[in-house]
Amino acid sequence: MPVAEMLRTYPADLGGVDRDALRRCIEECVACAQACTACADACLSESDEMLPRLRKCVRTNTDCADVCETTARVLSRHTGYDANITRAVLEACATVCRSCGDECEAHASEHEHCRVCAESCRRCEQACRELIDTLGRGAGG
Amino acid sequence: MPVAEMLRTYPADLGGVDRDALRRCIEECVACAQACTACADACLSESDEMLPRLRKCVRTNTDCADVCETTARVLSRHTGYDANITRAVLEACATVCRSCGDECEAHASEHEHCRVCAESCRRCEQACRELIDTLGRGAGG
Amino acid sequence: MPVAEMLRTYPADLGGVDRDALRRCIEECVACAQACTACADACLSESDEMLPRLRKCVRTNTDCADVCETTARVLSRHTGYDANITRAVLEACATVCRSCGDECEAHASEHEHCRVCAESCRRCEQACRELIDTLGRGAGG
Amino acid sequence: MPVAEMLRTYPADLGGVDRDALRRCIEECVACAQACTACADACLSESDEMLPRLRKCVRTNTDCADVCETTARVLSRHTGYDANITRAVLEACATVCRSCGDECEAHASEHEHCRVCAESCRRCEQACRELIDTLGRGAGG
Repeated sequence: MPVAEMLRTYPADLGGVDRDALRRCIEECVACAQACTACADACLSESDEMLPRLRKCVRTNTDCADVCETTARVLSRHTGYDANITRAVLEACATVCRSCGDECEAHASEHEHCRVCAESCRRCEQACRELIDTLGRGAGG
Repeated sequence: MPVAEMLRTYPADLGGVDRDALRRCIEECVACAQACTACADACLSESDEMLPRLRKCVRTNTDCADVCETTARVLSRHTGYDANITRAVLEACATVCRSCGDECEAHASEHEHCRVCAESCRRCEQACRELIDTLGRGAGG
Repeated sequence: MPVAEMLRTYPADLGGVDRDALRRCIEECVACAQACTACADACLSESDEMLPRLRKCVRTNTDCADVCETTARVLSRHTGYDANITRAVLEACATVCRSCGDECEAHASEHEHCRVCAESCRRCEQACRELIDTLGRGAGG
Repeated sequence: MPVAEMLRTYPADLGGVDRDALRRCIEECVACAQACTACADACLSESDEMLPRLRKCVRTNTDCADVCETTARVLSRHTGYDANITRAVLEACATVCRSCGDECEAHASEHEHCRVCAESCRRCEQACRELIDTLGRGAGG
């Protein structure tokens, strides 16, 4: 995925953003969105007995996929940067990844797709929080 | 758009949610997403002289379309409801609609598409804030 | 939803497109996307006994929501129009709406949300096919 | 990105699909969507003189990002598989990637982000066509 190359070839100033934190966060959002879409579908194919216990997992995975994709898009744009938008979207993404990571982790011992997905959610939440922290430092400096 | 019908035919309990506020918010998010996608494209077709002044408007419109669509999706799901997710997504949506409404309003006298889009952003921000308020009362009551 | 107003205020030439067919198609895609997102979630909240029979319905609804949203976006843009893109996306949308309409219709007598959603899918498929027909006439003229 | 792991942990039968072609296609769609979102934004930050020549590039990039994301989502689901949907979405994706690759390539010597993005579009178009071919063989066998 050419995230780093697209950041390098952006023709204007990226501002005071921490490039590594930004790149990691885009990569984790994109990966988490894909994992959550796949995990929702995998839950849907579990046995008739399991399926009713996975309703919340399907739903939270689907929300998480949507929010992570939107976050990856917002972070991939730099023109007309608005810190309020970036921060609000990152906060929402960290919140959804936390909820989805918790939900998937609760099924991780029974369903391997939930274990893999929970790890993606944890990494994505972490990457969002680290990027939020660098924004905070930018605003203060 | 069958938003009200889909709410009415949901087979389980919608919880303590204010149905009218929820319906209005879904409708405004969907409408605002469409208006913002169209406004970004309309800006892109303005004259060579105007276009450079509309960079931020294109960018904010595109962010706003993405966030409004994601918000409409999250609000259209009720299974395994998680108040933290709903609240975080609504906060992000209100924030982006505020920024996009401000940006479009600044061009409203020159570009009618920006005037129409600014009105959609204002209504959507308002609908998000009203829904957030009803969530707050639900949690407190 | 200000679809007509956004078409009216587009600052450049819309080409030979049939504005009414275009407006209807955007509106139906947006409505169908919302209905499909809501129907997938409603299926997920059906009884433990019903749920296993609705796996395919959840999946097809989710695909249909994604494709209808993307189609609404592509149709809301007019700058740098490329007939190949518009036609390919409309063909995909008509195909997915056909499959999803069939699947929801099969459950329409048991689940009212599937009945409402099937009607949205039929209207959207019809609107896509009518718009494809006008494109064909445009290219020939 | 845990695409291969999510395919491996899917709990039901993946059918006769070519797993390697499917994995590559998901990865290329996800990568191309991100590159196109970033390229549209990079075009938007080019000089006042360049910007008017990049209108079509911004628009096609944005369409391509939307279609590639939807394709990645559809391909990440396997439950209730419908060959008509998969094929129609892949055909649309190959078409949009072709157009976007051509448009970006036309600016590749002047704008490095267009060069990188064009390469993503070519790889994604190729991966879509290869996956379509395996579907064809599946249906024939």
